[in-house]
Amino acid sequence: MPNKTVGVVLSGCGYLDGSEIHEAVLALLYLDRAGVAVRCFAPDDSVEVVDHASGESGRAAPRNMLHEAARIARGRIEPLAAASAVELDALVMPGGFGAAKHLSTFAAEGPRATVLPELQALVRDLHAAGKPIGAICIAPAILAVALRGTGVQPTLTVGDDGEAAAALSAMGARHQVCPVTGVVVDEVHRLVTTPAYMFDASIADVSTGVEKLVQAVLRLMVR
Amino acid sequence: MPNKTVGVVLSGCGYLDGSEIHEAVLALLYLDRAGVAVRCFAPDDSVEVVDHASGESGRAAPRNMLHEAARIARGRIEPLAAASAVELDALVMPGGFGAAKHLSTFAAEGPRATVLPELQALVRDLHAAGKPIGAICIAPAILAVALRGTGVQPTLTVGDDGEAAAALSAMGARHQVCPVTGVVVDEVHRLVTTPAYMFDASIADVSTGVEKLVQAVLRLMVR
Repeated sequence: MPNKTVGVVLSGCGYLDGSEIHEAVLALLYLDRAGVAVRCFAPDDSVEVVDHASGESGRAAPRNMLHEAARIARGRIEPLAAASAVELDALVMPGGFGAAKHLSTFAAEGPRATVLPELQALVRDLHAAGKPIGAICIAPAILAVALRGTGVQPTLTVGDDGEAAAALSAMGARHQVCPVTGVVVDEVHRLVTTPAYMFDASIADVSTGVEKLVQAVLRLMVR
Repeated sequence: MPNKTVGVVLSGCGYLDGSEIHEAVLALLYLDRAGVAVRCFAPDDSVEVVDHASGESGRAAPRNMLHEAARIARGRIEPLAAASAVELDALVMPGGFGAAKHLSTFAAEGPRATVLPELQALVRDLHAAGKPIGAICIAPAILAVALRGTGVQPTLTVGDDGEAAAALSAMGARHQVCPVTGVVVDEVHRLVTTPAYMFDASIADVSTGVEKLVQAVLRLMVR
């Protein structure tokens, strides 16, 4: 699928304070296998560190999301503010707490959450242009927040997490329960979601879901 | 393949100062798909940080390899000193500069390099027990160093990197040129190597090589 470019929105490197690494790498793998060009973006902003061995927060100096996401992207990373719906044919957003704490405030604020203004604009512009967006794990919450109040009623999944699903519904989204190896495809709004590590899942099962997500996103792209 | 356990040796999280993330995640994926149990290990020691966006070294506070590797392993990480050849059926070592700078001193010292004593012992014990070892990217250098002076002449690849290949040969290894999508299998010594990001490669091609490596390692396991 040459001449198509897909954006990937990262928020650091590690599921407790940034992007879920497996979800991000698997998304990059399946996008590359399909032959599309990929551009990775992350906010150029610093956030609190969570130690992934101990689970402790805030003991290390804050880390910059763009510089940490460059570890996943092997240095090829751009500021999120540089992402433009005009230059992208689709978008994929991996999960991890970065999506719920830094790209959005969903973890703390649920249905009253906000999304970074540049990401909200990107999501709305892509949606308005009929360009597909894939969201993994908790990242579907970003879609619900960004589209809240626009009259759009997206159909999304965050697996079988009742609390998160209720928050999505409170923002006007339709929630569908979905297994880790499945995807929910909203054909009308060109949104694709898969629960991934919303479940205590194996990487093989997460990979199955992410592969289906990427394939569905590419299928929904404007030719 | 139940009741088999494969160790994965990490050295941080990011190819410039630790484990190459794609290689590590892909190894975990293909091991999980095969149904083996995985135990991840890393040295419980702090090293210099390289910024993956700018390439600059040493500006941030040192980071602990085990705590950073926990980002890849989703918290399930053990100290390298706890790894025992008796408890493992095989070993896989992803690459990245962590393998050449922290697990070994190959990047600085070439054929005169040393390997962390606990890793050298693990490699020698696994080899002596006829248990297979897979090494990705520059990690084959660890095998050459750890087996130097034992009378073992391993056959390995680091792709087509002439300088690294010459250093391996100077340590007594046989080097075979190999493309990113291939593997070199030393059936006698049960060593499997693939060059991965020794080339300026795509993640899809790296994935092909890592999948073949995992399959060969599992095929060589003692039943």
